[in-house]
Amino acid sequence: MRDWFYGMTDIPPDHPRIKSLVVRETLVEMFKRGIVVPQGLIAHGRGECFDYLIGEETLEEALESYRAAAALLKMSKNPVIAVNGNAAALAYRDIARFSRRFGIPIEVNLFHFDWDRVNKIVELFRSVGVEPIADFDVSLERPSSMRRFVSRRGIYSADTIFIMIEDGDFPESLRGLGKKVIAVDLNPLSRTAINSDITIVDNLTRVFPILERYMEMIGDEEAVEILNNYNNKEVLKRVLSRICVRLMEG
Amino acid sequence: MRDWFYGMTDIPPDHPRIKSLVVRETLVEMFKRGIVVPQGLIAHGRGECFDYLIGEETLEEALESYRAAAALLKMSKNPVIAVNGNAAALAYRDIARFSRRFGIPIEVNLFHFDWDRVNKIVELFRSVGVEPIADFDVSLERPSSMRRFVSRRGIYSADTIFIMIEDGDFPESLRGLGKKVIAVDLNPLSRTAINSDITIVDNLTRVFPILERYMEMIGDEEAVEILNNYNNKEVLKRVLSRICVRLMEG
Repeated sequence: MRDWFYGMTDIPPDHPRIKSLVVRETLVEMFKRGIVVPQGLIAHGRGECFDYLIGEETLEEALESYRAAAALLKMSKNPVIAVNGNAAALAYRDIARFSRRFGIPIEVNLFHFDWDRVNKIVELFRSVGVEPIADFDVSLERPSSMRRFVSRRGIYSADTIFIMIEDGDFPESLRGLGKKVIAVDLNPLSRTAINSDITIVDNLTRVFPILERYMEMIGDEEAVEILNNYNNKEVLKRVLSRICVRLMEG
Repeated sequence: MRDWFYGMTDIPPDHPRIKSLVVRETLVEMFKRGIVVPQGLIAHGRGECFDYLIGEETLEEALESYRAAAALLKMSKNPVIAVNGNAAALAYRDIARFSRRFGIPIEVNLFHFDWDRVNKIVELFRSVGVEPIADFDVSLERPSSMRRFVSRRGIYSADTIFIMIEDGDFPESLRGLGKKVIAVDLNPLSRTAINSDITIVDNLTRVFPILERYMEMIGDEEAVEILNNYNNKEVLKRVLSRICVRLMEG
């Protein structure tokens, strides 16, 4: 009977949520390779749910956050992109490309810290031609989690930190040090979403191609104006309204 | 430096979502024991998200589904409780107790089928004094997934199937065979939620103690009336409205 069953759990190609299931399989694969921790798989599921609520496509309401994020990155002197296991697993090619193109360094920063995993994430980025920072030579006072170990030449001296798929008090801690924080977070109610300067409520697999276009479009003067007029709380509220409209349409 | 980091990723006891994180760790533990598959961890994350949206407690709106589910179980001749890895991991003690108390058999039914995992789930239930059905001696025409392999003396001949944390076309397939389906699903928009006769939108860790109380309270005559007046679509709609109210309160 075992033979009968073999290989029969593949995703049926007519499944209505095929895209999301393929991404899910990528995560599982990255988990098997030691890039993602089991807790990261659960975190991904949470993200899937919110992606489902926004219709699995970029909301018009989110574009304003993209524009503001691009403006802030343009105006920053030392921006850094912080990556964890899930971010690397979902978008290391996109992140590497963006990093190279705009000269923004990448730093590995993990909640579930493990040297072995750090090395695997570094290798992943090297395989697409980028050398991430992974010194961990400074311990910030906060957060209490392992995320407080950062690199002197990276997050520690950066003025703007771009974080993805975090869930906790990391943004608050960074802002307490006078830094600006841009976050990618599908949950518009999370502490990360609420406590960041700019929150992009979108699936990470869609983020960088869109952000790249805004980086190309925005000039320096325009950037100042965009940031002056940006209100993160108000954008998050509009995203929530949109989710509600979608929910009630069933 | 490795020593410094050791054991420092434990959950801080003052974390605002401690309960949910403890359940998450249970799932990870069950994953390590081979009861839960990696995909199950992601599915759990999806559930976590919806639980978060309903406020991580049983909604008043859901109590009507509980009552109807108890009424239907009372009126059924051969009800069966179908369990998968996540259901077993989250609530095997509750399920076993309920099964014994009301004489409703348990049948193992897995989307990601694997004999080794079947045996581990059977062992888990044996450890709390219940012998689940796991014959897989009938192949239903639908669904296309491995869930179609059921047991002649279990799901195949049952009039009512109680399913938990499924996501797909299993309920449709069962109802196509003239069976009644009760589903526990935190996502009020899922195919399972929409296509079941009675959908309990609640976290599985809260379900059985509540369901037990309704089983005690409801008499046979009352059961008929409850079922005649129950409207699953209408209950799901009210659950969605409640979620929206919560979302907009931020």
